[in-house]
Amino acid sequence: MDALVSLCKRRGFIFQSSEIYEGINGFWDYGPLGCELKRHIRDAWWKSVVQAREDIVGLDCSIIMHPRVWEASGHTASFADPMVDCKSCRKRFRADMLCEDQDAKLIKTDKGFALPDGIKCPACGAKDLTAPRAFNLMFKTFVGPVEDESSVAYLRPETAQGIFVQFQNVLAVARQKVPFGIAQIGKAFRNEINPRNFTFRSREFEQMELEYFIKPGTDAHWHEYWVAERLKWYRAIGLPEESLKPYVYGKDELAHYASACTDILYDFPFGMQELEGIAARGDFDLTQHQKFSGKSMEYFDAETREKFIPHVVEPSAGVDRIALALLCEAYREEWVPTADTPGEPIEAECGKQPPAGYEARTVLRFEPAIAPIKAAVFPLLKNKPELVAKAREVFAVLQRRWPCFWDQTGAIGRRYRRQDEIGTPFGVTIDFQTLTDQTVTLRDRDTMKQIRLTIAELPGHLANIID
Amino acid sequence: MDALVSLCKRRGFIFQSSEIYEGINGFWDYGPLGCELKRHIRDAWWKSVVQAREDIVGLDCSIIMHPRVWEASGHTASFADPMVDCKSCRKRFRADMLCEDQDAKLIKTDKGFALPDGIKCPACGAKDLTAPRAFNLMFKTFVGPVEDESSVAYLRPETAQGIFVQFQNVLAVARQKVPFGIAQIGKAFRNEINPRNFTFRSREFEQMELEYFIKPGTDAHWHEYWVAERLKWYRAIGLPEESLKPYVYGKDELAHYASACTDILYDFPFGMQELEGIAARGDFDLTQHQKFSGKSMEYFDAETREKFIPHVVEPSAGVDRIALALLCEAYREEWVPTADTPGEPIEAECGKQPPAGYEARTVLRFEPAIAPIKAAVFPLLKNKPELVAKAREVFAVLQRRWPCFWDQTGAIGRRYRRQDEIGTPFGVTIDFQTLTDQTVTLRDRDTMKQIRLTIAELPGHLANIID
Repeated sequence: MDALVSLCKRRGFIFQSSEIYEGINGFWDYGPLGCELKRHIRDAWWKSVVQAREDIVGLDCSIIMHPRVWEASGHTASFADPMVDCKSCRKRFRADMLCEDQDAKLIKTDKGFALPDGIKCPACGAKDLTAPRAFNLMFKTFVGPVEDESSVAYLRPETAQGIFVQFQNVLAVARQKVPFGIAQIGKAFRNEINPRNFTFRSREFEQMELEYFIKPGTDAHWHEYWVAERLKWYRAIGLPEESLKPYVYGKDELAHYASACTDILYDFPFGMQELEGIAARGDFDLTQHQKFSGKSMEYFDAETREKFIPHVVEPSAGVDRIALALLCEAYREEWVPTADTPGEPIEAECGKQPPAGYEARTVLRFEPAIAPIKAAVFPLLKNKPELVAKAREVFAVLQRRWPCFWDQTGAIGRRYRRQDEIGTPFGVTIDFQTLTDQTVTLRDRDTMKQIRLTIAELPGHLANIID
Repeated sequence: MDALVSLCKRRGFIFQSSEIYEGINGFWDYGPLGCELKRHIRDAWWKSVVQAREDIVGLDCSIIMHPRVWEASGHTASFADPMVDCKSCRKRFRADMLCEDQDAKLIKTDKGFALPDGIKCPACGAKDLTAPRAFNLMFKTFVGPVEDESSVAYLRPETAQGIFVQFQNVLAVARQKVPFGIAQIGKAFRNEINPRNFTFRSREFEQMELEYFIKPGTDAHWHEYWVAERLKWYRAIGLPEESLKPYVYGKDELAHYASACTDILYDFPFGMQELEGIAARGDFDLTQHQKFSGKSMEYFDAETREKFIPHVVEPSAGVDRIALALLCEAYREEWVPTADTPGEPIEAECGKQPPAGYEARTVLRFEPAIAPIKAAVFPLLKNKPELVAKAREVFAVLQRRWPCFWDQTGAIGRRYRRQDEIGTPFGVTIDFQTLTDQTVTLRDRDTMKQIRLTIAELPGHLANIID
């Protein structure tokens, strides 16, 4: 993990927010490559969930909504984590995580929670912690020129509620029939007591949420369908089956209104952790908003002439977590044959030197569809104007379609390595042969194999793999 | 404007945020079509400013940053509007706008501002307003489990400062030399006292900002360059020269550190208003952050062996304002020939009925590149399985590449009208001839002309126009 975190900073994937001011805990910035990676994740999700289907439409709601939204959803009353203070050093901790780290379990009581015996402060070691108290995770602000109770509003802790609140407006415009879905991508905020694990648990993050509205009684079918669909998507963007694990909630773990919930876990270096939750939430949310707003959330089924409040299945994913999982999955330290040795890359052995004829490389084996940069273009020599001019022509064609990188500096081997380290799947080299037969060398990041093809064939060849 | 606002709601471009809870002033949600429109605006900007260039890279910073950022930038001390209260009805107003609406001008004093005589409350009519006081426009929140002065943070009022704060990190990874730029798209928040003009002045909005770092002394050249570049871009997305007006700041209107500023104004129904500001800000921002953080913001020029703090030119645009301008520009009420009348659409005369052989239509004449839906596919008759199956084939091919719409319901003329109203540039109709010769009808939204071409030619033909 350390090597990856270091690469993320060194090559411009992820920086600490406000680093020059000693940072701000739980907030992260995405550098040039990180923001391309996130763009491709969003685009891949949108393409799969919205564009490629006829039964799902998009929505883009404001982050600050009317505070009644969060009363209806239950967040104002109970979106809270149990928090304890150390009476000795005055630091604060999330009680459940504190217990987990000390191989204990937080005790549920009638009124809330209690700490088991023997839990100590991880900062100063004192066994002098307060009883756990509920701490609401919503960030609070004030809208309008007066700062008082009447102007309190919250930064949304999830994008989902915007979808429920606009259900009737979308239904009226979208010419959809149940089952149909509404999808949204956007920032959400949770005032985590102890942000941790790099970008995994942060206070500001980006969600991709789908609410799929269904006929009551079909919940189990659609829940199963969406778990399968979402697993398929993760495989397509480069998270293989063996790194993922669906976690199926037991009856006793489900919220009272939910009939099923499955988390998709990824095998992070810090443990199996949630990428996405897929919950069958019944009609809880729409019913709550109907109650709190006094506006009907019913759907009229023209075929059966029934009216009902639709049930919903909610696949809810985190962009930042997916980005982190993709980085973890893609990161490899390898030994690769030097120029005059034939063969394929082999996995490096930790702490050892590569064997004779091999050298070490760091590579990000991203799927081409989500790689930040799709192709790098190299004129073999930078001091040969005819090579540079021809390479410029090729670069212009590719850059019109994809994020590409131009590099004319240094030995070609070093240029390949620089691209390997940021996960660029293709290197295109323009050499003297290009000038005579209009062919270029296309080098594959993973196999390091090179093929020659004509400039005319190149965009189509790449499009088949990337798009 | 009213007709457009009504269309925006009726067809799903823009909804009031939290409408079922009587709304929340200054916040808006984008419906299925609005969010596609915004996606295409962002993509067009990113493609033009980042992807198609080698000298600009992207960045994606957190909305909540360290509060020192806003001390350094000057926002904590002086990002404020003058506010007055009506002592009679207790409503609050922005003093400058109040004056403007009453054809008066707010008076600048040594200590701040004063109201001219005779200004009255627009709500109750009383001439009993307080003196103007400064009201800071940043939304405040608290980060971490304690709510006190030490945990105060702000929602960013602009994305730009994130770029300055990360200047050295990006410089270190991006292999760029001055002149080069850093671009960012993201939400920003301003607690406007009086949000107004539909989505134009809202409290939550999305910015597209570029900081272009240059050698001191080249400011005028680069400022001119970016004004020209940005005007070109507006024309490309469908805002013609005659609807735009550059407003060049006079010397007395410039901030003390700025050497030039040009606003690009658009001719909205509510007046000429700013879409984008292009400011030559000197080294003010980097110098401030160097002072407040104690970290060097200098750039080392390897060629001249000089060290300097780069100057910056900042083109700063609003996604929501561009979306609104595009909607205003695209909206037309027209009289179009009925099926058996030849001819082109003509502009409707207000309040009159169309002449014989013509009927009224509402159309959004979006540029194909930014139109929410690119093509609609229609089987001529829905009860002919062979037509539907063939249309499905065509639809599948187009949908893989672009947001498309499937419609098999109603007379073909009505289906065209529905697409005209949401600005879909192309209608593709599959009829009986298609079954024999593999050609389809391609109908152009603006001219309403139809051509026949083969299914094989269709994607390439559309790509040339859309992409």
